[in-house]
Amino acid sequence: MTILLYELVGADLQRPFSPHCWKAAMALAHKNVPFERVPTPFTRVATIENGSGRTVPLIRDGDRVVGDSFDIALYLEKTYPDRPTLFGGPGGQAMARFVERWTQAVVHGFIGGALLADINACLAAPDQAYFRRSREARFGKTLEEAGAGRHEGLDGFRRQLEPLRATLAVQPFIGGQGPLFCDYIVFGAFQWARVVSSFRLLDADDPVAAWLERCLALHDGLAGRVAAAA
Amino acid sequence: MTILLYELVGADLQRPFSPHCWKAAMALAHKNVPFERVPTPFTRVATIENGSGRTVPLIRDGDRVVGDSFDIALYLEKTYPDRPTLFGGPGGQAMARFVERWTQAVVHGFIGGALLADINACLAAPDQAYFRRSREARFGKTLEEAGAGRHEGLDGFRRQLEPLRATLAVQPFIGGQGPLFCDYIVFGAFQWARVVSSFRLLDADDPVAAWLERCLALHDGLAGRVAAAA
Repeated sequence: MTILLYELVGADLQRPFSPHCWKAAMALAHKNVPFERVPTPFTRVATIENGSGRTVPLIRDGDRVVGDSFDIALYLEKTYPDRPTLFGGPGGQAMARFVERWTQAVVHGFIGGALLADINACLAAPDQAYFRRSREARFGKTLEEAGAGRHEGLDGFRRQLEPLRATLAVQPFIGGQGPLFCDYIVFGAFQWARVVSSFRLLDADDPVAAWLERCLALHDGLAGRVAAAA
Repeated sequence: MTILLYELVGADLQRPFSPHCWKAAMALAHKNVPFERVPTPFTRVATIENGSGRTVPLIRDGDRVVGDSFDIALYLEKTYPDRPTLFGGPGGQAMARFVERWTQAVVHGFIGGALLADINACLAAPDQAYFRRSREARFGKTLEEAGAGRHEGLDGFRRQLEPLRATLAVQPFIGGQGPLFCDYIVFGAFQWARVVSSFRLLDADDPVAAWLERCLALHDGLAGRVAAAA
C-alpha cells in the first residue's frame, strides 16, 4: 500500500522545503516503501486528515496516521524491520536524538532566522500573510530584521559545524559507511536552505558540502532533483 | 586474564584525571572485564610498555596492546561481544564519533584552556615542568593566561551544552535508557574537570549535572569514589 506523506510547499507545489518533511521523505525512500507526496501549503496544514491542529510532516499508512519526523522514523523502523535500517540498532536510535538536538540548536538556530525572508518569498500570498504574522510574533522582529545579521553570523555558524566536519573526516556519513536517519536529520536543514535561498551557507571546499552532495544523490537523487534556489 | 590500563595521574596516584583515560576505565567497567589501573605520570608515559612515543590511555590485554580511547572501546566491543555492548549496534558506533567530535570541540574546547593551571597544580614537580612547557607552547600563552577568561566564557559554554541538555530531556543517558560509550566520552571531560578543579562548570539544577551524578554512580561508583577537587 502506498504511504501518503503530507509535506509543506510554497507557491510551487514541486518544491517542498520543510526540513522536517525532508527528513520524513528521505526516511521513506531509505526504507524503500512506496509513498506519495501530498503538497500542503501552510494555510492548509490544519485541515489535513480532517484534523485540527495537525502539523507536517504527517504520514498515513493504511489506517495509521503518524506525525513528527522522529516519530515517523521510529514508526517506519518498527513497522518495516526487514527494510534497510534507519538507526543501525538501539544505540543509534538513542544517539540520533543527540544529533537531532544538535541540529536544532546549531543548524536551525542559525538558518531559522537567517532565511525567514527567503522562505516568505517562496510562499503563495495567503501563506505569506500567515507566515509573516506568526514568525514575526515568534522572533519579535520583522522577517527582514531577523535575517539582517546573517553575513556577520556566517563565520560563527561554520565554526559550529566543526563536530560534523570532523566526523566526516573519519567516515562518509554520520551513520557510518552509509547514511542513516541521523544524516537525514542534518540534511533536512541544509536542504531547506538550499531550496528556499541562494544564500551560501558553506564554503565550496567544506567537507560538509561534499557530504551534502552525497546526500543529494541518495535514493535516485530524490532531494537533488529539486533544483537549488537561484 | 586481567587487563592493564595505563592512565595519567598527578602527584596523587589515586586520582587519575585524564578524560581519555576515564573513557577507557568506564568502558572496561561497562564490559565487566577485570582490569588493573597502572598510574602513569606525564613524564613516564613515553616509557610504558617499552614503547617510545606511547600515549595514554593504553591497555594490555594478554599479548595485545591498544591505545586511543575510541580504539580501546572498539577493541573491547569486538573482543568481548558477549559482554554488555558499548555502542548498541553499528549505528551507535558511527554516531559515537559525532558525540566524540562534539565533545572535543565544545567541552574540551572550553575546559582545555580553562583548567590548565588547576591541572598543573595537581602534578608532581617534574611533571609540572613538562606540562607548563608543552602546554604553553601549544596555547601560545601562560597556563594562567589561558584560564583567565573562564568566568566570562562560562555562560557561552553552558549554552553550547544545549544539545546534551535537550537530549537528556527525552532519555536518561545519551545512549538511551542506559549508558553507552557515548556517555563516557562526554563524562570523561566532566570527570577531568571534577578531579582537578573546584571551578564550577554547571549550575546545580542543570539536567547535565543530574546526568553527571548518574554517571558517577555507575559501576559501583567507579568514578564517584574519586572525590571532587576541593
